[in-house]
Amino acid sequence: MEAARGADRNPTEEASFSPWGGRVTRQLESDADIGRPGQYAESNAELLAWPVLSVTHTWKTGPMSSSSTYDAIRVSTDGAVTTLVLDKPEKRNALSLPTMLEIVDALQNVAQSDADALVIAANGPVFSAGHNFADMAGADLDATRHLFDVCTQMMNLVQEIPQVVVAKVHALATAAGCQLVASCDLAVAAESAAFALPGGKGGLFCHTPLVAVSRNIGRKRAIEMAFTGDPIDARTAADWGLVNRVVADTDLDDAVADLVSRSVRGSAMSKSLGKRAFYAQIGLDQGDAYGYAAEVMAQAAVSPDAQEGIRAFLDKRSPMFTERLTD
Amino acid sequence: MEAARGADRNPTEEASFSPWGGRVTRQLESDADIGRPGQYAESNAELLAWPVLSVTHTWKTGPMSSSSTYDAIRVSTDGAVTTLVLDKPEKRNALSLPTMLEIVDALQNVAQSDADALVIAANGPVFSAGHNFADMAGADLDATRHLFDVCTQMMNLVQEIPQVVVAKVHALATAAGCQLVASCDLAVAAESAAFALPGGKGGLFCHTPLVAVSRNIGRKRAIEMAFTGDPIDARTAADWGLVNRVVADTDLDDAVADLVSRSVRGSAMSKSLGKRAFYAQIGLDQGDAYGYAAEVMAQAAVSPDAQEGIRAFLDKRSPMFTERLTD
Amino acid sequence: MEAARGADRNPTEEASFSPWGGRVTRQLESDADIGRPGQYAESNAELLAWPVLSVTHTWKTGPMSSSSTYDAIRVSTDGAVTTLVLDKPEKRNALSLPTMLEIVDALQNVAQSDADALVIAANGPVFSAGHNFADMAGADLDATRHLFDVCTQMMNLVQEIPQVVVAKVHALATAAGCQLVASCDLAVAAESAAFALPGGKGGLFCHTPLVAVSRNIGRKRAIEMAFTGDPIDARTAADWGLVNRVVADTDLDDAVADLVSRSVRGSAMSKSLGKRAFYAQIGLDQGDAYGYAAEVMAQAAVSPDAQEGIRAFLDKRSPMFTERLTD
Repeated sequence: MEAARGADRNPTEEASFSPWGGRVTRQLESDADIGRPGQYAESNAELLAWPVLSVTHTWKTGPMSSSSTYDAIRVSTDGAVTTLVLDKPEKRNALSLPTMLEIVDALQNVAQSDADALVIAANGPVFSAGHNFADMAGADLDATRHLFDVCTQMMNLVQEIPQVVVAKVHALATAAGCQLVASCDLAVAAESAAFALPGGKGGLFCHTPLVAVSRNIGRKRAIEMAFTGDPIDARTAADWGLVNRVVADTDLDDAVADLVSRSVRGSAMSKSLGKRAFYAQIGLDQGDAYGYAAEVMAQAAVSPDAQEGIRAFLDKRSPMFTERLTD
Repeated sequence: MEAARGADRNPTEEASFSPWGGRVTRQLESDADIGRPGQYAESNAELLAWPVLSVTHTWKTGPMSSSSTYDAIRVSTDGAVTTLVLDKPEKRNALSLPTMLEIVDALQNVAQSDADALVIAANGPVFSAGHNFADMAGADLDATRHLFDVCTQMMNLVQEIPQVVVAKVHALATAAGCQLVASCDLAVAAESAAFALPGGKGGLFCHTPLVAVSRNIGRKRAIEMAFTGDPIDARTAADWGLVNRVVADTDLDDAVADLVSRSVRGSAMSKSLGKRAFYAQIGLDQGDAYGYAAEVMAQAAVSPDAQEGIRAFLDKRSPMFTERLTD
Repeated sequence: MEAARGADRNPTEEASFSPWGGRVTRQLESDADIGRPGQYAESNAELLAWPVLSVTHTWKTGPMSSSSTYDAIRVSTDGAVTTLVLDKPEKRNALSLPTMLEIVDALQNVAQSDADALVIAANGPVFSAGHNFADMAGADLDATRHLFDVCTQMMNLVQEIPQVVVAKVHALATAAGCQLVASCDLAVAAESAAFALPGGKGGLFCHTPLVAVSRNIGRKRAIEMAFTGDPIDARTAADWGLVNRVVADTDLDDAVADLVSRSVRGSAMSKSLGKRAFYAQIGLDQGDAYGYAAEVMAQAAVSPDAQEGIRAFLDKRSPMFTERLTD
């Protein structure tokens, strides 16, 4: 995949170029403001102030520092693809508070890394059973608020990091586990996979998982999942749009590798900018979405990678892209 | 279904517990404010002020008082399931102003009842032909405004009452009749059913029916229904997501009973809260939706029914739920 | 189709009747305000101020004045149907700036014409390859802003003109070409057609095309198109809802003619009002959408064409509609 992108990145050149023109109303104060959940909804001015084109040409190298320190997950990198495996099979890969904090940390590390894609997979008979009930038994309101705030932060991070994120679902994904699949940019399911929002048949409705699921599939189908709590099989999930495709269990590795390789072609900067702009515009009214996206596209069109792609096309040669979005 | 929920509800205990914590900005002044159309869209503060957890343990009994007084509809209750039948077959179950007022009254009664689910069905060769043209012939603007205000109130009530509402569609549903199906939480269609927004080929476009239909199915499909006015068959409606499933005519009763029974399992309070939170969040930007849903979920997680469900799961025993959402 | 609408339009009568009642807060100052992109999103007061019922009975005749002056497109009218053909096959019907300005001009002329429907078709081996890279090579930010502003204006005009707009897609539509199909009210594809957002595998992500595509199909499918850049075939496009149907190449003409003829039945005024109200409400929260659509429907119900349709139905005779929406 590196070859497809161009081989001559310059590891030392660093430049922050013309981020926004006369329409910019505010620059974020610090890196800490980037990717804050909900920041995009405040106003158009906020949207346009998002420093999407504050890029750097720095090419970072080396493995992530903390990958070996996790307890419930495993993180590894092969070339441009990082894989995060939920690895507490004896706990059905429940998203306990410590596990979610590990995932948040891993996502933040991935965001800072050179990876082009992140695959979220799982080990064991269940992809993920969702929240850990033990975290909630007897907990007070402050504790449950903290739990769901961390969970929401984790789901938002999946969409905020500059990498392409693909869920690789080999088995049952329920509640927040199903929400995690719905929150990934893309998802591939094996035929043995299934998806459920089981809170509806218990004592605690899947409110936050339904936020993600209902933004992937039709309204009546989302309500059916949430009200009945019954699982849908992988073919139904693909038919409804909850996952991109379903394949035989033995083909899952290949199908994920294929989708990843097709998703990371082209300029890394352009792809990251595209991901961010998509999530910024999808919740807006069409008029506001165009106002935002047209400005992003105009600015992106004058960036070095866009100009390189255009010139390569006109010159009938392969492009060599060099930019990355800093995060 | 009662057995599944737990047999020992206490019919006399009554308690209003910790509705909202420090983030609450306003309490609604009276019951009259609850379920007002459009109240959720005003601001996040409004959303959080919604007294979702102002529950009572009171277990009401007895049939609804007004069920025998209607002219155009029949309402009956069997166990935890109430059924509302449109019963003016000679008028093709048109939604005349008096009929809509009867339905509004019936929905308000159901909301106050012990029912867990409401099935909306119809009698005769047509499910419903929509508005009654006689109400509009020669009417002035005040009269037509009143007509569509009542209609909108009726459609909103279907989504505001705490019960699971399932449309049972055995035949053609057109215009506001199609809107009624689209407004139900869930819908099952017989193969003989069909769906149309016929105003597009006449003199009065189906503006308000399209509001509901376009929130259930894809944009181009909704436009095709509205522009052509031609009916789609039940299989197409299921394929597009306008109904949850289509079955042979002879299987309609069983399919509705099955979907209802699977939809009313678990805590009644949790299910009602889930329904309300879904409709409150689905129109919001994802960031706002999470801000709202995470707070609802955190508060719901410390409620007695949620804690009972969690403890029962951890103790490997069946839960016994006792709460209902007051309305 | 004229026969279906009624044969006795009066070409001289002209009347502007009761546009809005007591709820109107502002009247647009001039025709120039009509159809301005983004005007509907500002507030409900703005929505209600939209002069939807400021109609005229004038029946304009004659061909469009500028149809023979275009370079990259051909415009012709047959009865009530105007056809716009992208006709630069040697340029793969790229949407260069001059071509987009021609399309904008043609759309504005169509809006002022008597046509009931506009078919957007193309000539040559490609429907449209999207933007012309030569417009962007070495361009400065002001130039790219202008390019995407014109493009957005063109896409918005497709949805703002009072005619039914149907895309007739016989071949590959990529980037802004795919966006153009997504922006049409309806679309019919031949089996040889395909659809792609190829910027994702180059240096410039398809930000603005994705605004349109992601409002037609599910989220994960839209992301897959935009991230991979790979084309989807016509059957997949129909399955996902990007086009209304796919037919054999040899049936494309007939399928388009059939959909057009079924889409232009009924009152021209009512259909145009319905189109505009749909695009005004679809991006709103459901509560706001109902507030708007119910008022439009109440006012429409007292219009001459609506009353004619109602009386004809009650009298069991064919209606004769006479109104058109001025633009």
